Amino acid sequence: MSSIPTPAYDELAGTWTRMHHFGHLQSIAGWDQAANMPPKGNEARAAALAEMAALLHRMRTDPKLPEQLSRAEQEPLDALQRANLREMRREWQASNALPESLVQRQQLATSRCEHAWRTQRPANDWAGFVENFRPVLALAREEAALLSAQNGMGKYDALMDRFEPGMTCAQVDRVFGEVRQWLPGLIRQVRDKQAAEHAARPLLDPVGPFALDAQRRLCDQVMRVLGFDFAGGRLDVSTHPFCGGVPEDVRMTTRFREDDFLGSLMGTVHETGHGRYEQNLPRELLGQPVALARSMALHESQSLSFEMQLGSHPGFVHHLAPMIHDALGEQPAFDTHNLHRLMTRVKPGLIRVDADEVTYPAHIILRYEIERPLIEGEIDVEDVPALWDAKMQELLGLDTRGNFKDGPLQDVHWPESLFGYFPCYSLGAMYAAQWFAAMRRATLDLDARIGSGQFHVVFDWLRDNIWQQASRWSTDELARRASGEPLNPAHFKAHLEARYLG
Amino acid sequence: MSSIPTPAYDELAGTWTRMHHFGHLQSIAGWDQAANMPPKGNEARAAALAEMAALLHRMRTDPKLPEQLSRAEQEPLDALQRANLREMRREWQASNALPESLVQRQQLATSRCEHAWRTQRPANDWAGFVENFRPVLALAREEAALLSAQNGMGKYDALMDRFEPGMTCAQVDRVFGEVRQWLPGLIRQVRDKQAAEHAARPLLDPVGPFALDAQRRLCDQVMRVLGFDFAGGRLDVSTHPFCGGVPEDVRMTTRFREDDFLGSLMGTVHETGHGRYEQNLPRELLGQPVALARSMALHESQSLSFEMQLGSHPGFVHHLAPMIHDALGEQPAFDTHNLHRLMTRVKPGLIRVDADEVTYPAHIILRYEIERPLIEGEIDVEDVPALWDAKMQELLGLDTRGNFKDGPLQDVHWPESLFGYFPCYSLGAMYAAQWFAAMRRATLDLDARIGSGQFHVVFDWLRDNIWQQASRWSTDELARRASGEPLNPAHFKAHLEARYLG
Repeated sequence: MSSIPTPAYDELAGTWTRMHHFGHLQSIAGWDQAANMPPKGNEARAAALAEMAALLHRMRTDPKLPEQLSRAEQEPLDALQRANLREMRREWQASNALPESLVQRQQLATSRCEHAWRTQRPANDWAGFVENFRPVLALAREEAALLSAQNGMGKYDALMDRFEPGMTCAQVDRVFGEVRQWLPGLIRQVRDKQAAEHAARPLLDPVGPFALDAQRRLCDQVMRVLGFDFAGGRLDVSTHPFCGGVPEDVRMTTRFREDDFLGSLMGTVHETGHGRYEQNLPRELLGQPVALARSMALHESQSLSFEMQLGSHPGFVHHLAPMIHDALGEQPAFDTHNLHRLMTRVKPGLIRVDADEVTYPAHIILRYEIERPLIEGEIDVEDVPALWDAKMQELLGLDTRGNFKDGPLQDVHWPESLFGYFPCYSLGAMYAAQWFAAMRRATLDLDARIGSGQFHVVFDWLRDNIWQQASRWSTDELARRASGEPLNPAHFKAHLEARYLG
Repeated sequence: MSSIPTPAYDELAGTWTRMHHFGHLQSIAGWDQAANMPPKGNEARAAALAEMAALLHRMRTDPKLPEQLSRAEQEPLDALQRANLREMRREWQASNALPESLVQRQQLATSRCEHAWRTQRPANDWAGFVENFRPVLALAREEAALLSAQNGMGKYDALMDRFEPGMTCAQVDRVFGEVRQWLPGLIRQVRDKQAAEHAARPLLDPVGPFALDAQRRLCDQVMRVLGFDFAGGRLDVSTHPFCGGVPEDVRMTTRFREDDFLGSLMGTVHETGHGRYEQNLPRELLGQPVALARSMALHESQSLSFEMQLGSHPGFVHHLAPMIHDALGEQPAFDTHNLHRLMTRVKPGLIRVDADEVTYPAHIILRYEIERPLIEGEIDVEDVPALWDAKMQELLGLDTRGNFKDGPLQDVHWPESLFGYFPCYSLGAMYAAQWFAAMRRATLDLDARIGSGQFHVVFDWLRDNIWQQASRWSTDELARRASGEPLNPAHFKAHLEARYLG
C-alpha cells in the first residue's frame, strides 16, 4: 500500500463499501423472497426492494462520482487499487450509460412481456408473445445503439459486455464457428456408440419414489464432500434453484422431486460450484468491485467444473455411488458404471435446460445466431420461428415446427431482455474444460487422484487460479495466467471426445 | 381527506413510507440473522445492519424535518392525518433528543456489558458485572436527565416513555401499589388451595420425549386455530423466540425441547398474540407511524390475551387437549382437567421468565422498585443485591442471598440499558384482563362461547378495539374507547381470583 494519501480513491472505496452493505440486505431479502416468503408478503417486499434499488441507483449515479474517479486515477495507487478503480469505472459506466427514461420503459416492457410469457408459453401462444416482445426488442436495439455509440463496440458486443466484459462477437464467432464444425458429427458418433452400448447392456433407470429428506441429506453430504462451507452458507428449497446471498453467507437453493433424485443432486453439485466461487473470493477486499466474481462465463465455468468436469468424472461417480446407496437404499441402477452412464447419456432434445453437455452448445449457438442479428436489425421477430426450426434441424436433427413453447418461448431471457447472456453458458463450459486441461498439466495423475478421492487437488487449483483472482485481471488475462492461453475451445472438444468416444 | 393541498404533510408521509421500506429489509435481515444465518455470516450482517441503522438515523435526524413538521401542523389535516403527524413528531423527538456522542457511548457500554454478561451470569460473577454495568447506568442517568430537562417529565418517566408513551411513575405507583397490597395474600391462598387439590388428586406430568416434528405440527395447528395467517407469515425456530418481520409478513419463532412440549406450545400461543396484532394493523395506512402497534404494554396485552386469557381458559384447553392427543399420542396427563391444572400451577420461583401469571407481577414490581431509584440516583449498584433479596423475601418468600445468577443477573434488560421496559410486562397482563372484562360485558356468554370453540368472538373484539386502532389514540384514550376506562388493575385481580380461587 502506498503511503502517499489517496483521498479520492479512499472516498470511492468507502462508497463501494456502503453499497456492499446495502447490497447485502438486498441479496438476503431477495433470497428470502424465493426461499421463505409467504405470498401475502410479496407486495411489501417488492416495494422494499425497489426502494433499495432506487437508493443504490442514486449512489451509482451520484454526480460526484465522475470527478472522484478522475481524481483517483491521478493518485499513486498500487496495482490492486488500480484494478479496483478500473472496475469502479466499469460499474459507473454501466449505471450511467442509459437515460433514466429508457431504463424505465425497459422495466415496464420486460415486466409486461415476462408476466404474459408465463401463461403464453404453456399456451404455445407465439402471436400473443410477439405483441409484447416487439417493444422489448425495440428498446434493446435502442440500448445497444446507445451503448455502441458511447463505447465504440458493436451493438451486440455492447449488450454482451454487460455480462461478459471484454468478450466480443469476433471471439464468439471464432469459437462457436469452430464448435459448429465438429459438433453435429460428434453428436452422431456419440449417439451411435451409446446405442451400441445400450444394445449390449441396457441402461438401468433408478426406481423411485425417493424420500425428500433422504435426498436432502444426500445433497448436504455431497456439498460437504465438495467443500461447501456450511458455517458460511445454507442450502434451501426454491422453485427455481439459484445461488444467492453474499460471499460471506452464500444461500444456495435446490428443488426436489420424489420421482427423480439425480436431477436435483447434479443441480446441487452445479450450484455448489457457484457457491464455492463466492465463498472463496478474496476476503480482505470484499465490498470492493475488484473482489467480485469476474464474469458470468467465469461463474458458469465454476458450476460446470463442479457438475461436468468433476461431478460427472468416473472417479467422482465412484465416490458418489456409495453415498447414493446409503441415502436411498440399494438398487441395481446405483452401480457406479450404470450411474456414470446415466449421467453422460446424450440425447438431442428441444429444451436447453434439460440438455446434456454434448448437445448443450447447439442450443446456445442457435440462440446466439438468432439474437445477434435480431439486435443488429438484420432479422425481425417474425423470422425467428423459421430460423429456430432450420437451426434445430441442422444442429440436432429435430423438428420444432409449430411447437413454440418448446422452441423460442422456452427461455425467460428474451422476455427479460437479457440479450448477450446466452453465450456465457457455453463459454463457461469451454473455460471449465480449459481449466481441467491446465490442471492435468500441472498435476501428476489428476484423474487417478480424483478416483482416489483427493478432490482437494481440484479445489486448490480453482481457488488459486480463479476464485482468489476475483476481478483483478481481465478475463483474457486471467485465462492466460491460469492456463497459459486465452479461451481455446479445443480443450472442450478434447474433453467431450475423451469422455464420450474414449 | 381534505382537498386543500397539504404539501408538507405529503412530503413527510413520503419520507416515512421510504423508512418503512428500508425498515422492512432491516426486519427481514434481523429475523434471518436469528433464524437462518450461519455463524460466519455474522460480521457482514452486523455491518450491513449497522449501515442501514445509520441511514435510517440520518433520515430521522434530517435537519429538514422540524420545519416540515411545523408547516404540516398548519395544514388542513383530517383527524387521522393529525394523529399520524403527532406520532411523526414523537418519533422525531425520540430520534433527535440525544447527542450523537451519548448514543455512541451507550452503544459501546451496553455492547460491552451485554457481551460480558453472557458469561458472567452463568459464573454468578456479580463483581465482574458491576464493573461493566456502572458505566451503563451512568449513561442511562445522563440520558434520563437530558430527556427530563427537554420534556419536563420525571427521569424514570422519560425512559419509560420510550416503550410506553404517556405512562408515568404516578400511574405505575398507583397500579403496582394496589397489586402489592393483595398479591402476597393471594399467592398464599392459591398455593394452599392447589396443595389441597394436589393431595386429593395428584397432578400428572406429561412423559416425554416428544418428537420435534410432531410438536412443530401441533404448534402450526394451534396457530391456525388462533387465526394466524400463514399466507402472511411463518413460524421458524430460533434460540430466543420472538415475533419479528413486518406486518405484511410476520416472522414468529419458537424453540422446541424434546422433554417439554407445553413450554414451547404456550410460548407459541403467546407469540401468536403478538403476530395477530401485527397482521391486523390497518393496511391502508401501513408505512405511517399511526399504523404501528400502540406500545409495548399494548403488545404484551395481546400476547397475554392469547396465552393467559384465552389460551389458559378452561374452555380453550377443552379444545386444545384433543389436538395434543392427536399430535403426541394418548397419555393420562393430556386429560383436559389435568392439562388445565398444569397450565395454571402456581409456584413462586427465582426466574421471571419461568413465572406463572400469579407470581409474575411480583418479579416486575421488584424490578420497578429497584430500577427507578437506580435511575433517579437514590440508590447505587452496590445496593441492588440486598434490595433484591429483601423484596424476593417480602413478595415471594424466597431467599436469593449470594445467588446473583438467578437474581439481578437473570435479565438482559439492564445490561442493554432497557430501563423502563419491565413495567410493560405487567401492565400488559392487566390490560389483557381489562379487555376480557370488557369483552364479557359486550358478549353474551363469552366463556360458554369460548368453550364451544367460537374463538372468533375474541378475535373480532380485539381486531376492532385494539388491532385496527393501531396508534390512532393515546393508550389511555384507546383503553377508554375499548373498555370504558383507563388502566384499572381491579380486572386483573378479579381474573386471578376467578381462575385460581373460584
